[in-house]
Amino acid sequence: MALLFYSTSDSASRWKAALATAIPELDVRVWPEIGDAREIRYALVWRPPEGLLASLPNLELVLSLGAGVDHIFADPKLPAVPVARLVDPHMVEAMSEYILLQVMRLHRQDVLYMAQQRRGEWTEHLQPNAGERRVSFLGLGMFGSDAARKLAALGFDVAGWSRTEKHLPGIACFHGADGLDALLARTDVLVCLLPLTPETEGILSAALFARMPRGAAIVNAGRGAHLVEEDLIPALDSGQLSAAVLDVFRTEPLPLTHPFWRHERIVVTPHVAAATNPATASLVVADNIRRARAGEPIRDVVDPARGY
Amino acid sequence: MALLFYSTSDSASRWKAALATAIPELDVRVWPEIGDAREIRYALVWRPPEGLLASLPNLELVLSLGAGVDHIFADPKLPAVPVARLVDPHMVEAMSEYILLQVMRLHRQDVLYMAQQRRGEWTEHLQPNAGERRVSFLGLGMFGSDAARKLAALGFDVAGWSRTEKHLPGIACFHGADGLDALLARTDVLVCLLPLTPETEGILSAALFARMPRGAAIVNAGRGAHLVEEDLIPALDSGQLSAAVLDVFRTEPLPLTHPFWRHERIVVTPHVAAATNPATASLVVADNIRRARAGEPIRDVVDPARGY
Repeated sequence: MALLFYSTSDSASRWKAALATAIPELDVRVWPEIGDAREIRYALVWRPPEGLLASLPNLELVLSLGAGVDHIFADPKLPAVPVARLVDPHMVEAMSEYILLQVMRLHRQDVLYMAQQRRGEWTEHLQPNAGERRVSFLGLGMFGSDAARKLAALGFDVAGWSRTEKHLPGIACFHGADGLDALLARTDVLVCLLPLTPETEGILSAALFARMPRGAAIVNAGRGAHLVEEDLIPALDSGQLSAAVLDVFRTEPLPLTHPFWRHERIVVTPHVAAATNPATASLVVADNIRRARAGEPIRDVVDPARGY
Repeated sequence: MALLFYSTSDSASRWKAALATAIPELDVRVWPEIGDAREIRYALVWRPPEGLLASLPNLELVLSLGAGVDHIFADPKLPAVPVARLVDPHMVEAMSEYILLQVMRLHRQDVLYMAQQRRGEWTEHLQPNAGERRVSFLGLGMFGSDAARKLAALGFDVAGWSRTEKHLPGIACFHGADGLDALLARTDVLVCLLPLTPETEGILSAALFARMPRGAAIVNAGRGAHLVEEDLIPALDSGQLSAAVLDVFRTEPLPLTHPFWRHERIVVTPHVAAATNPATASLVVADNIRRARAGEPIRDVVDPARGY
């Protein structure tokens, strides 16, 4: 029973050690040391190269190293086997911490105060209460719903938008195309936690920014391709947006020459909002492999038609 | 029935307008336009100059423009009339937001990531869970207890220290001199929200930093005089402290030449953690003035022996 591990950003040695504890009977092979490809039944991957998965004739299950699966469906030769997302409660906590930090940063005008610190400027700004700050989520899945609930508990005026209708206590829920307009019109801080699909790619665009009140801010912790990167700096410079916090980018690592690094009202973090922790995530992966072997239903399998 | 308003940092015009709504019968006089000093029964002040309050022969009540009263007791000629702190629930919310932002910043290694952004450096750091982060409060009054409760709800390992014994659900409570040693030994982030008294002045010193684990961080939102300023940069540069977030300073505004502005691991904010908002605080002040006129007990009167 062999598993192929492929990632250029996760630690193979840390994952091997964690899986050895979580499921000792598993034979973990780290790419490119595949051995006999016919022995590989499972693949645990992040951004697999085109055709790698198709080269494994007895592959039964693809496991994502992250909560998203867009990096797997990007392979046009992806074989017709089930694909499971990684759903680890510790990642949900980590994402909510990140969103809470960034929304609180925007609420408390920290981007402004940090710029003042660089100039040695002591100026106090009027501070609204949390209840006067309208925070909106694009995406109300496991990440969005948890962060929305925690911000609402701190007194923010929270709303959310999803493809299909949802009901969450204390959160104003919108859905569909009309719902998106209504949501954007009541938004001071917009948080993107959508899955990346053909429908959501490029959703954070000049057209969307224009539908929010002047001076709104955005936080993108979804995927880099949600943002039309060339639309951001013009929106900041015109004042339509007041600030942007970005954890994900079209090209990662973000190239040193990219203007996002140096814009005073853009906060850049290196894709750290909800890092996969092998210590806890290996237990989730091990559980799904045991289910596959026992012929039981696999958890968190993605609907290929929906893409998440 | 006249009230004297004195502050060099609060807006006299905003306070006059708010008090005109909250208690229209009150004759508000803004220093130095005192008029007949004998008519003044109440004084609403921030850092009154020495002898100002003693010059009002019929003064019945001193009202602080902030939650602390150290700026009033600093006057050696303070007359023997009751002094009331300002206790506004909106200020408690604002302080908890600030503490939450700064503790989350330290927890999520944001000081490091922001320094990396300035260099255009894409490096991910291992991220502990909130439950592995020990956050300790000096002071468990109205500010400390609210912030401690909110951080515990987010999964942090929270403790607190107070002069007298307290019991708060979900918070490890310590008190007295022995309790302080025990608290410091289990601290990754230390938050100071103490009142400023002769006993607490200079508590944040090299000697205290040495009693915490190497690499701990501090947040001071108490008073500038809690920190021995000359001890901070050596503790950061030696690695005993990893970072410091400061909202208050011995001299405010912080002078442009002060080295705190430019240290990469010091975050400076201009005394904005919990600003007094006249719209809500004027209702609290109006209530206490009505109580004084009616001979009813004044709320939030300070014990002069204790100093808070």
